[in-house]
Amino acid sequence: MNFTGAHILSISQFQRQDVEHIFSVADQMEPYAQRKRVTRVLEGAILGNMFFEASTRTRVSFGSAFNLLGGEVRETAGFESSALVKGESLQDTARVLSGFSDVICMRHPQPGSVADFAACSRVPVMNGGDGANEHPTQALLDLYTIARELQAKGRGIDGLRIAMIGDLRHGRTVHSLSKLLCLYNNIQVTLISPKELALPEQIIDELRAAGVSVAASEELNNSIANVDIVYSTRIQEERFTTKEEADLYRGKFRLNQAIYTQYCEPNTVIMHPLPRDSRSDANELDCDLDNNPNLAIFRQTDNGLLIRMALFAMVLDVVDKVDQFSHEVRWHNCR
Amino acid sequence: MNFTGAHILSISQFQRQDVEHIFSVADQMEPYAQRKRVTRVLEGAILGNMFFEASTRTRVSFGSAFNLLGGEVRETAGFESSALVKGESLQDTARVLSGFSDVICMRHPQPGSVADFAACSRVPVMNGGDGANEHPTQALLDLYTIARELQAKGRGIDGLRIAMIGDLRHGRTVHSLSKLLCLYNNIQVTLISPKELALPEQIIDELRAAGVSVAASEELNNSIANVDIVYSTRIQEERFTTKEEADLYRGKFRLNQAIYTQYCEPNTVIMHPLPRDSRSDANELDCDLDNNPNLAIFRQTDNGLLIRMALFAMVLDVVDKVDQFSHEVRWHNCR
Amino acid sequence: MNFTGAHILSISQFQRQDVEHIFSVADQMEPYAQRKRVTRVLEGAILGNMFFEASTRTRVSFGSAFNLLGGEVRETAGFESSALVKGESLQDTARVLSGFSDVICMRHPQPGSVADFAACSRVPVMNGGDGANEHPTQALLDLYTIARELQAKGRGIDGLRIAMIGDLRHGRTVHSLSKLLCLYNNIQVTLISPKELALPEQIIDELRAAGVSVAASEELNNSIANVDIVYSTRIQEERFTTKEEADLYRGKFRLNQAIYTQYCEPNTVIMHPLPRDSRSDANELDCDLDNNPNLAIFRQTDNGLLIRMALFAMVLDVVDKVDQFSHEVRWHNCR
Repeated sequence: MNFTGAHILSISQFQRQDVEHIFSVADQMEPYAQRKRVTRVLEGAILGNMFFEASTRTRVSFGSAFNLLGGEVRETAGFESSALVKGESLQDTARVLSGFSDVICMRHPQPGSVADFAACSRVPVMNGGDGANEHPTQALLDLYTIARELQAKGRGIDGLRIAMIGDLRHGRTVHSLSKLLCLYNNIQVTLISPKELALPEQIIDELRAAGVSVAASEELNNSIANVDIVYSTRIQEERFTTKEEADLYRGKFRLNQAIYTQYCEPNTVIMHPLPRDSRSDANELDCDLDNNPNLAIFRQTDNGLLIRMALFAMVLDVVDKVDQFSHEVRWHNCR
Repeated sequence: MNFTGAHILSISQFQRQDVEHIFSVADQMEPYAQRKRVTRVLEGAILGNMFFEASTRTRVSFGSAFNLLGGEVRETAGFESSALVKGESLQDTARVLSGFSDVICMRHPQPGSVADFAACSRVPVMNGGDGANEHPTQALLDLYTIARELQAKGRGIDGLRIAMIGDLRHGRTVHSLSKLLCLYNNIQVTLISPKELALPEQIIDELRAAGVSVAASEELNNSIANVDIVYSTRIQEERFTTKEEADLYRGKFRLNQAIYTQYCEPNTVIMHPLPRDSRSDANELDCDLDNNPNLAIFRQTDNGLLIRMALFAMVLDVVDKVDQFSHEVRWHNCR
Repeated sequence: MNFTGAHILSISQFQRQDVEHIFSVADQMEPYAQRKRVTRVLEGAILGNMFFEASTRTRVSFGSAFNLLGGEVRETAGFESSALVKGESLQDTARVLSGFSDVICMRHPQPGSVADFAACSRVPVMNGGDGANEHPTQALLDLYTIARELQAKGRGIDGLRIAMIGDLRHGRTVHSLSKLLCLYNNIQVTLISPKELALPEQIIDELRAAGVSVAASEELNNSIANVDIVYSTRIQEERFTTKEEADLYRGKFRLNQAIYTQYCEPNTVIMHPLPRDSRSDANELDCDLDNNPNLAIFRQTDNGLLIRMALFAMVLDVVDKVDQFSHEVRWHNCR
């Protein structure tokens, strides 16, 4: 696809070569994310960071990515303050807000809302999460993390064996990652969840149609024995009718160092879309894993910055100019 | 008036020549608003964007305008988080906050509050709306839009015929625009509203005292027959005691393409301060007008950026330096 | 201490020479804070301004200080929007957020939380207030103000006589300032409060152990007769169980110009951490003092900008480069 001026709404926009293109630009962004260099390529550009639903990490990640390219950020955080409550259509909101910025990132609780918004926007729109529907930059950063972790072992994504664990029914990141995996060859997916929280049939069908080998299990320990990646997720309490219903499933699949040592292959990579629920009744990934070098969960969030920088640079067509407008960092770099 | 270092609190500060001065600077800002060029003239300057009342579009418009001149924005959005609830006077708040920035934009629900604040501020203050009182930049952008739309037809503001429609009692923008129109010659105003939501007598008196011809009507179709501008407004539900009371009036005056074609002169310009209420029981301006080239409502909000850029540049005395510190845009411009 | 890359968590980190080092860097920041010059030394750096508790002035002061050094600010304001409510540990939050910025300022209601956060952060963390525990930049700006006000009279901090007034039990700023005063010689402190709101015994013990002379009083007028500084504070209503309990003490110690003239030595300096409670039942510092040149309360808040700029410059090791990357201000400077 041609990224210049494009909306980034759904992972279904991407072919395998598009994904690889994004990943190669993300690699280029590393000296800037690690504060080895500073670029001013987007000096004077404005990101409209429109979060019509609460979020700290994703909102700050998008904003920081834009700042790291030299641009400015104007923001909203929350629904209350919006003209939407006065009866304005999303289309009108898009027509107005797109006059204020050069690119918009939007999160909104309603599935499909970001695409509706994009249809009337005069500038490129990135989907920062539209309810249960899509969160494409999360899926890309997950796959990018898989690629980097495997690359460090001299391998590619083809042939990947991955176990996905937890609330596979509500977990938007698991759905999107599954779809991206369909672009690759010889993938084996093991789904570990309570029956009630299983991955939706439709997605399983898509995986199988794409040649992915799919197995399911309700038990953790033996199911993580022969995989490259363990991808754990949080019980999405906010998507259940009652807290009590969510409590039935919380804490059912807990991974800690002892289980890891006993059951996993050496160097199995541990991932999680974060936040991980560290309360004692959940404890999805025990803190005793924090010193395990294969715990990739914080490299994962760092990779999010690279992916978002890459997408901004591609959509605004400045990939080739990033280095040209760069200079050395002037301050103490703790990294 | 001398704009350097001045507060912008009320449209009653302006003579006709001041308004024309602002409009001519706004014209100069167009290459920057349209991202043809980038200016860094305000590099290092800080706008204190203090919104003690919810607002997305006005807050973001002020912030973006300042960013487009190269400055930074520090912000607050909402009352809760303020020292005001701990018994601090607005005067003290002004003395403190004005130490942090070079210019302040303030919105506050209490009429007169922004002027009180400005009296103790050490930097220029712009009124971003003080309750039912004033919102001067909105009035200026409305008149600027009228000027530009008429200019495209080879005309000026003198001799304007305008119909104002809807909640003329509570609509702050209609009040302020009326006052600005008093600075011009041979103006004809038609007021279309339910009796209960009529324009306040005092404003009608001001209009007449300034030589404006004023007519009133409770009926839409025939009253928009001989005007240059149709200025529609929203029923200001939040200013009524009950939602039920507001519901009595909502949807009384609906303009759509069929009515426009049947009753309006060709090329009658349609304006609205936004947000337009697009819910089915309101639908002030039907979506079938969206392809009508005379629908100026989104040009109107774009013009707000130009007006706010102009005011910042004038108050901080950098009008003559904007071009000097400018360079070409480096990224893909979708406009 | 070595400031480069250090966390700023507590005033107990500082020796007298550290405090004096900070003050001398703060002096250097004055041309930038007063907008005589602009520096771009932190161009491309990002402050993560993470306020997990409401605050306008402190949040904006930190943000503006960073902007004045040329850096960008990403922000959060409030707890709701945080992953913390989904069960994320502060440690994980720190690991994630520290990937997005070069330095973090954090406020959080829970005592000790900022230190816990800092322990897992990959970048320097500044404590912007952790509940009843510490607010080190406020203590520094208070002492810096004392130093500057006395310096104008040809004196140093040694030998200072200071009266602290009001809610000395809950007032975090009084606690921290007391601890800093322990670093100096021949200090006399007069504590004026209701018995129930007395300074905690532990802090009095620390003062005495450091050789500070401490006296206590429940009466205002005669107790402010022989001091250099009157430091008034607000009844911290939000720390009482009921509003009624706070009301018992509100307005007990009111200073106005008449009392000042009758009881204070000439040129006694009046300070207050702000916000001052100006409601009629409180009125800690009457508005008739506003024209008294010894009212230093707004110089105090201005000094906060200098202290925060100094700390950012020291922690990021750019003190010697601030001038190198500077240029003249281009806009009208109202100061």
